[in-house]
This record gives sequence, C-alpha cells and structure tokens, in this order.
Amino acid sequence: MPFDIPANYRPLWATDIVAYLESHPALRERLGGIPSDWNLREVSDGYLNLVYLVDGPKGSVCTKQSLPHVRVDENWPLPLDRTYCEKLYFESVAPYANGRIPELYHYDEELSLLVMEKLAPHQVLRGALIAGKRIPDVGRAVGDYAARATYFTSDLYQRSEFKISSIAKFQRNHVLHRIMIELVYQDPYISSDRNHWTTPQLDAFAEDFRTNGRIRAVAGRLARKFLASPQALVHNDLHAGAVMATDDDVRIIDPEFAVFGPIGVDPGIFIGHLLIAYFAQPAYATEADDRTGLQAWILEQIADFWHTFRATFVALWRSNPGGDAYLEAQFADVIGRAVLEQERQAFLDEIFADALSFAAAAIIRSIVGYSHFPELESIGDPDRKAASEAGALSLARTLLLEPERFLGIDDLLAAAPAFQRAAAAAGSVLKP
Amino acid sequence: MPFDIPANYRPLWATDIVAYLESHPALRERLGGIPSDWNLREVSDGYLNLVYLVDGPKGSVCTKQSLPHVRVDENWPLPLDRTYCEKLYFESVAPYANGRIPELYHYDEELSLLVMEKLAPHQVLRGALIAGKRIPDVGRAVGDYAARATYFTSDLYQRSEFKISSIAKFQRNHVLHRIMIELVYQDPYISSDRNHWTTPQLDAFAEDFRTNGRIRAVAGRLARKFLASPQALVHNDLHAGAVMATDDDVRIIDPEFAVFGPIGVDPGIFIGHLLIAYFAQPAYATEADDRTGLQAWILEQIADFWHTFRATFVALWRSNPGGDAYLEAQFADVIGRAVLEQERQAFLDEIFADALSFAAAAIIRSIVGYSHFPELESIGDPDRKAASEAGALSLARTLLLEPERFLGIDDLLAAAPAFQRAAAAAGSVLKP
Repeated sequence: MPFDIPANYRPLWATDIVAYLESHPALRERLGGIPSDWNLREVSDGYLNLVYLVDGPKGSVCTKQSLPHVRVDENWPLPLDRTYCEKLYFESVAPYANGRIPELYHYDEELSLLVMEKLAPHQVLRGALIAGKRIPDVGRAVGDYAARATYFTSDLYQRSEFKISSIAKFQRNHVLHRIMIELVYQDPYISSDRNHWTTPQLDAFAEDFRTNGRIRAVAGRLARKFLASPQALVHNDLHAGAVMATDDDVRIIDPEFAVFGPIGVDPGIFIGHLLIAYFAQPAYATEADDRTGLQAWILEQIADFWHTFRATFVALWRSNPGGDAYLEAQFADVIGRAVLEQERQAFLDEIFADALSFAAAAIIRSIVGYSHFPELESIGDPDRKAASEAGALSLARTLLLEPERFLGIDDLLAAAPAFQRAAAAAGSVLKP
Repeated sequence: MPFDIPANYRPLWATDIVAYLESHPALRERLGGIPSDWNLREVSDGYLNLVYLVDGPKGSVCTKQSLPHVRVDENWPLPLDRTYCEKLYFESVAPYANGRIPELYHYDEELSLLVMEKLAPHQVLRGALIAGKRIPDVGRAVGDYAARATYFTSDLYQRSEFKISSIAKFQRNHVLHRIMIELVYQDPYISSDRNHWTTPQLDAFAEDFRTNGRIRAVAGRLARKFLASPQALVHNDLHAGAVMATDDDVRIIDPEFAVFGPIGVDPGIFIGHLLIAYFAQPAYATEADDRTGLQAWILEQIADFWHTFRATFVALWRSNPGGDAYLEAQFADVIGRAVLEQERQAFLDEIFADALSFAAAAIIRSIVGYSHFPELESIGDPDRKAASEAGALSLARTLLLEPERFLGIDDLLAAAPAFQRAAAAAGSVLKP
C-alpha cells in the first residue's frame, strides 16, 4: 500500500542534518559555534527511523526522522505520520509527566523530523539489564510516569471532548496500530511467515500457541479488549528499550506506537519485558557473577513499579478529579467518597488483571513472534537461550490460562523463580 | 459556546423548502408535477430539528434540517453537525440494515439538510404503544436491525482502520455526545436544575438516586464503560420514538446521537423504553380495555427482541468473520471453532448484562432527568402517573443494584409484573 509523502520530504543523512540545523537559528544557537565544531553520530538502532545525536560547543540535540519504509527493509513501506504521533504523544503527556520525557525543540511536518533533547549520559535500560548494571529506583520512576501519563489522559480526568479529538488525531497512526495488532495479538497464534523462534528447542511451545484452544480464546478476547477499550493514551511499546536513565534521572522515549487503549497495556508491557530480562539472566552468569542478585533486583523493580503505579494512579484520582467518568459532583458527600474509593480499588484490580494478560502477550510475541529483543537474542548458546525463553513462555502461558493464580503482584514474583527452575530442570526437552 | 455556522446556512421554513426542492431536479422529479401541486406538512416533534413531509403527484420526501439551537429553546445553542452524523450513521449501516432505515435522497452540507424517504403509512411505535395498538413482530424486527447494525460495525467484522476513521468522523458530533453523557449518566445522580419528576410522589425516589452510594457507584462505572468501550456504532437513542412501522415494515430513524459505544447500549435503550411503556399501560386502562393484553404483548416483544438480537448477532458472527478481534485464521480448526463458539456465548452474556444496566439508566433518566417521554407524560392523573413511574424506577433500581437476579431475559419478564403490583399496592407512599 503506497502512502502520501509530502513533496518536500527527503531523508536527511548526516550532512543534510548538519545543514538543516545550521539553517534554523534556534537550533544553531542551541548547539553553539559553527557546523565544523559539531560532532554528529548516527544511533538509529530501532526498526523505523533515522536518529542522530549532535553535540556542539554549547549544547546538544537528538534528531529523529521517519523513513517511508522500515529502516532495515526498504520493501516494507511505512507512512511518515509516526513522527507526528510521537510529537502528539509527548505533547499530550508533557504537562503531567514530571519531566520524564525528552524536551521537544522543533518539529518539521514536511520532513517528519523531530529535534529534541539529547539524553546524556543516560543509558538505555535494556543495555543495563544485559550488562548486569542496576539503575536505582527505575521501577518506581517508570511506575510514577505510567500512572501519570495514563491517569491524566483518561476519562477520570479528561472530559469526553479531549478523548474524541485525540483519537481523531492519532488516527494518522493507523498503519503502526495495525502492525502492533498483528504482531502482538494475532501472529503468535497463527502460522505466519513472520514468526520465528529458537528451533527445534521451542517448537512444541510455538505449536501450543497456535493449537491450544483456551490460549487462542484468551488471545482473541485480549485483541477484542485492546481494540475496544480506549481508557487512556498508552505508550504501547514501553519495554526496556524505551527507558533511558542515569542513576538519578529516568526518561521515557519512542512513543511512536502510542494509541488510546486499555490502561493495563503500559504496565503489562513494562512488566512483561522485565520478566524477559529476569529469565535471560542465568544465560549471562559468569563465575564472578551468577546474576542471582540482579534477578532479585529485577523482581524488586517489578514490585516497585506496580506498587508505585497503583498508589500514584489512585492518589492522582483522589486529588485530581474532573473527568466525565465518576463525575466529581456525584461523589461529594461522605458516602460518595467511600463508594468512590471502593471503585478506585476495584478499577485498579481490573487494570492489574489486564496488565498481567498484556505482559503475557508481550512475552509471547517477543519469543515466538516477529520482533525479538536483545535481552534474549544476545544469548549465544541456543540451549541456554531456549531455557530462558521456555521459563518466560511457561509463565506467560500460565498468566493467560490461570489468571486466578495471580491476584496480586506478590503472586507473580513468587512464580517467576519457580518457572525458571522448572525450565532449567527440563533440560533440552522443552514442553509447554 | 458558539459554533461555526457555514456562511450560506439558513433555516429553510415551509416556502424555502418548496423552493429548495424545486431547484434540485432529482428531487423535483421525484415529487412530480409543479410546486403548486405539492402538499407540505411540518412534523418537527423532537427537540432538535426542522422536519417537513412533502407529497407530490408522483412521490414524497421527508426533509430534516438542523437548527443552530434546540428547537424549543433558542438560548441553548447546538452545532449543526448532527445532520452530517445522521447521514454518516445511515450510510455506515445501510449495507447491512436489511432495508430497515429510510432511503437517503440528498444531503446538503452547507444547509445541514437531509432529504430522505417519507415513511408512509408508517406510524411511530411510541404512538402505537400509547394508543394500545400492536405492531406485529416489532420486537423481532428491531432485534434483527440492532444486531446487524452493531455486528457489522464491530471489531468482529471490521478491521481496525474502519473504526479508527469512523470515530474520527463522528467526532463532529461531540456536542450531542456530551448532552447524552450528561443527561443519561450524570444528571439523575446529582442535583441539577434540569432534573424534574412527578412531585411530591417521587421525591423519595429522586433523592435516592442522588444519595444512595451503591447506585451512584454503579452509575459512575456505567459512565466509564459508555465512554471507553467503542465496541460498535450504536444508534444511542433507540427508543420507541425512533421506530416507525406498518404492520409489515419496521424502520429505524433519528440516529443523530450515534456514537461508537458498548454494543449493549441499543438493546438496553430499546428494552428500557419498552419497560416504560409496560409500566405506563395501567394508567391507560379503560372499562373496555384494561391493557393487560397489551402489557403481555409488550413483554413478548421484549423477549422476541432479545432472542432475535442474540441469535442474529451470533449467527452473523459465525457466517461473517473478518474483523481484527478473534482473527478468523486463529480459530479455523475443530478446537478453534469450539472455543470461539464459547467466546460468542460469553460475549453475548456480557452484552446482555450491559444492556440491562443501560435499560435501567434509560428508565431513570426518563423519569427523574431532563427529557421525559410521552408514554408517561401523557398520563393525566399525577397519582396514576407516579404509580407507573415508581414501578419502572423500582425495577431499574434493582437492575442496577442486584444484577445477579437477572441472568436471562425471562428473569426480567418475570420481574416486571411483580414490580408493577408492588408499586400499585404502595398507594401514594412511594419509596424506593
């Protein structure tokens, strides 16, 4: 399917970027000096975009531009609108994000180009998890962020006009929405050329997702929920690659898949990818570090994340009413306040249950679907990799099939080590 | 809040309508003859629009034009976009509606004018219910219609792009959406100048809706669901005034409040208003007709409506897959077909539970909210009116507070007479 490309669009390669920055006084001024003083580095490591970091004598910027196709596959066309939607997401959550997103400096509609704050010396959380490095309090920071970004874009805070008009604007992202629907909620449960996995070790797992009736029913229901529950604006790709951090600053990046969806999506994806990182650790064990300490720390981050998300969301709801759902005036008396508090707790229980389902879907699509992630892909030995993956898949499978076993975050934390031990003990005979 | 009015917009009163029809060859040709042969009648009986029926020697038309304010209150401004949204709704469901909507002849964007089929000799279902006249099979016809209109606009049949782009188009209706949100889900549960009811007889009921904590909690949850569950395109005002019928033809009109919402909304509103008509009947009793026969017939229509809705929706789902939820390829084998059938039944159970909540909300807003309806308003004696209203309100209240008592449509049908007897026995002491 061809897409409209503005007449003046062109990809800006390194020298073009320098010329572009030079020709925009505010950006030139921010970098300082003259172009020959500037240092430029390409860091396009995702699937979709051209990204450059530029340092000048005075300051730095990060440029991010959409390409009209998947960066690593010129035959997979992609519309440019995702840059607009990234900007729109950042603008929508900026008033509420406690500074946990990059500052935006400049947006060029015709070029689908965003110039924003260069995050330095931040590192990507994913790299830290692979390297065995701990980012202090990252769970709490991301939990605080996810609660703020979803609460303040939900019907609990906003009036209906906000959501209706926002959904209309995010319509420009429909191609990326389709990609996410297919890759996460459909492909892993059918035979698809895009699917791949560690074979033959995980063949039985992959087959199970395609043939087990109950799993497919739950996956179908999850797709239905994802498509018809725009509870809030969700980042929709909040894995460890979308978190950049120093020891005392955490930022969220790369919201190009943003959409109005179930609030549980972001907590689910974040928890799911932390679980993947947890199960990957034994494969990174060395004599000096068996990684059990890091594993315990990862589980702690999951707990901190969820507790912070839940407490923050509820606290924001208590102190910032105003939306069309649960109209403030309906609950202004003593009894009203009491029943509304019960509603809050019940809604957060519902979000938690949703989050675990979305976590499971994130794990499954990362291991038997199209896009895999470095936490597992960096593991050299296929048997060790498969053992890690089997542990994660077994847990994901159980999250979908026996949700009643996971009524609180502690149930999840207790389950993870048990599933890891079981997968390790299974040797090369990996069965769901 | 002022709204944009196109430069060439003007309300077309009787002579203007004639001139307009004359100046459009296709419309002139449809009516036949010359303007002096035409017979024009204003039938604007709703709150919002100018409606004329025009008969010529050869054919007839119905014209419907938005006014920039509520028809009966020039100080309540309303945007004109509702005509566009009415057209959009009709166009969206037309391919699937089995001819149960009026044929559209002409749409004028600048004038917010729709020219469509004049339905004759159809009568409005509401009038029939008040007059004690039965419309054969109306329950089945509306059930078939509601199932088709929602199934074919849901994620079970459509791909996500359809819904995203449709929601963006219906955004133009946001002012009407707000009116519906406030009148149905908010006002009855707060003190509002717009609320009114049969006083003093129903004072205790009205107060209960504003003070009972559990009712308010359920109402808040219902508002949340209405706002964040765009499962399908719903008519959103499917009461007996939106159904026109002869003995062998049933049509659905007046979809200006259409929105993407929970599928249970339309069945709920239709059932709720049939229940209102049921409870109104004793007040219309005469010596010649105590209306108990019509009451039994109304309950039969409710049963027929729901059975038809459910069976049709499920049958359409079986024979017309294609949507992004429950992707067809995921369920193509024997096991897949079996689990998908379970999902269908579970989803219809969910829609039924939703429908009963929306029915309750429709009843409550029609008796203690802003817009009341002729089924009850035409009752002259305030005590008889209040007795009918108390019966309906008691049932609505129980639907919200004890949904577990209503697992199937038979539970509802059995409850209605019991609530009527209880309200009648209460005399003038009406308490929830």
